Amino acid sequence: MSQFDDETRLTALGDGAFEGLVSPDWSIGSNPNGGYLLAMAAKSIAALTPEHPDPLSITVHYLRPGLGSQPCRIHAQVLRSGRQLSTCRATLMQDDSARIEVMAAFGNLGAGAQAVIEPPAPSIPPPDECIPRSGDQQGIKLPIMDRLDIRLHPDEVQTKIGGRAQITGWIRFKDGRDPDPIAALLFADAFPPSVFGQIGAVGWVPTVELTVHLRRRPAHGWILGQFRTGDLADGRMIEDGMLWDATGRLIAQARQLALVRQPG
Amino acid sequence: MSQFDDETRLTALGDGAFEGLVSPDWSIGSNPNGGYLLAMAAKSIAALTPEHPDPLSITVHYLRPGLGSQPCRIHAQVLRSGRQLSTCRATLMQDDSARIEVMAAFGNLGAGAQAVIEPPAPSIPPPDECIPRSGDQQGIKLPIMDRLDIRLHPDEVQTKIGGRAQITGWIRFKDGRDPDPIAALLFADAFPPSVFGQIGAVGWVPTVELTVHLRRRPAHGWILGQFRTGDLADGRMIEDGMLWDATGRLIAQARQLALVRQPG
Repeated sequence: MSQFDDETRLTALGDGAFEGLVSPDWSIGSNPNGGYLLAMAAKSIAALTPEHPDPLSITVHYLRPGLGSQPCRIHAQVLRSGRQLSTCRATLMQDDSARIEVMAAFGNLGAGAQAVIEPPAPSIPPPDECIPRSGDQQGIKLPIMDRLDIRLHPDEVQTKIGGRAQITGWIRFKDGRDPDPIAALLFADAFPPSVFGQIGAVGWVPTVELTVHLRRRPAHGWILGQFRTGDLADGRMIEDGMLWDATGRLIAQARQLALVRQPG
Repeated sequence: MSQFDDETRLTALGDGAFEGLVSPDWSIGSNPNGGYLLAMAAKSIAALTPEHPDPLSITVHYLRPGLGSQPCRIHAQVLRSGRQLSTCRATLMQDDSARIEVMAAFGNLGAGAQAVIEPPAPSIPPPDECIPRSGDQQGIKLPIMDRLDIRLHPDEVQTKIGGRAQITGWIRFKDGRDPDPIAALLFADAFPPSVFGQIGAVGWVPTVELTVHLRRRPAHGWILGQFRTGDLADGRMIEDGMLWDATGRLIAQARQLALVRQPG
């Protein structure tokens, strides 16, 4: 079993309740990565809706940091199930407190549907010519970088103030597990904040809310991600991201609201 | 009292419960507009969090069409309240069925905060030189057009196949009520689907999920909106929108997942 599958494993307790263990190995500093927690919640929902296994739209609000190395309890619920979609929610609790709240529409991602309009994948050097993301960010350890292989566009790896608020790069699991829609939720929240390129590294950029739209099942191989911050004001930023698979097809769009510890 | 305030009025019943009447006057055909229903739910949340009156991030899932001319019951709940944010949810029920489910982070929008990065308002002719949105769309009556004044960019008012999937225009209340953050939720869902410009009018484009991020309080006057569909595949589209106030400042970003009755 892959590290990701093993470390997001849930045990069904019935009535939409699940229990699991939040691994410390997908953390940024001492906080479990938000995409990792979202993936666990998504798995609980998928277990309730076998006819609609894929998160077509999933929104998570981060109420409190997760606790690595501690058990979690998830309560998931199907609010409405129709022919095309199941609307669901889930709460991930640790230590008797809600850590994340999730609302989602699950359905079936087509395998080979033609796109009428599709954002093209950006041009980027191959993974071997990109720069591995460091496991250390401004002195903060990133245990997650022992689980994920991230290669960043060499032109964007700089933290000097005044560059573009954009980050482009490749991502895959270190242990070779193939990407899938649940993994895409993790990949949507695993790149360095794109705003670093514009205003310099600013430390912690906590996510308030993240919404991911899955668009198709990814092919085998690397995933290409591009993230941009086009809107930063009053200490809050909106970051938009897209993920493409190794064949250049769009697999997901993501948008998050995050707080920035920066005047303005 | 303005039409919008009057027709989104809620009576608090205690314990986060509210009741109101869904007006038939904000409908597209016989279905109350989704942004109108969202505004009602947002008002219920704001009533619970007077210290955090503004929806910084609000996501709505549309479970079933609303029922015009019928009462509604809203159940709102504060999930967590911190210094900067209150995370909340709300369910709008009619006829004993949930119609919409809302999750949101409420806070305080700065009045005059400087932006570090801000998307510029597009160039568009003044309202007098734009084309009023019709109260009839492919034979479907739009009662909401008696409440809203919408003027569309003359170059984009066409439904022939092959144009850009973009719509730009001005919006305001017909009765002169000023815009505010709650009204911006309505304005984020009141323009014609931008995909009409690309694939021709396709009838009903039901929204599955809509997320709006409020960025600042709008100034007095017209609101300028621009909406684009950059991703349409497998019968589902992602539409992105932005709203600017009369001084050219960005007041909101919006993104929705909608179903399209179109092959591909």
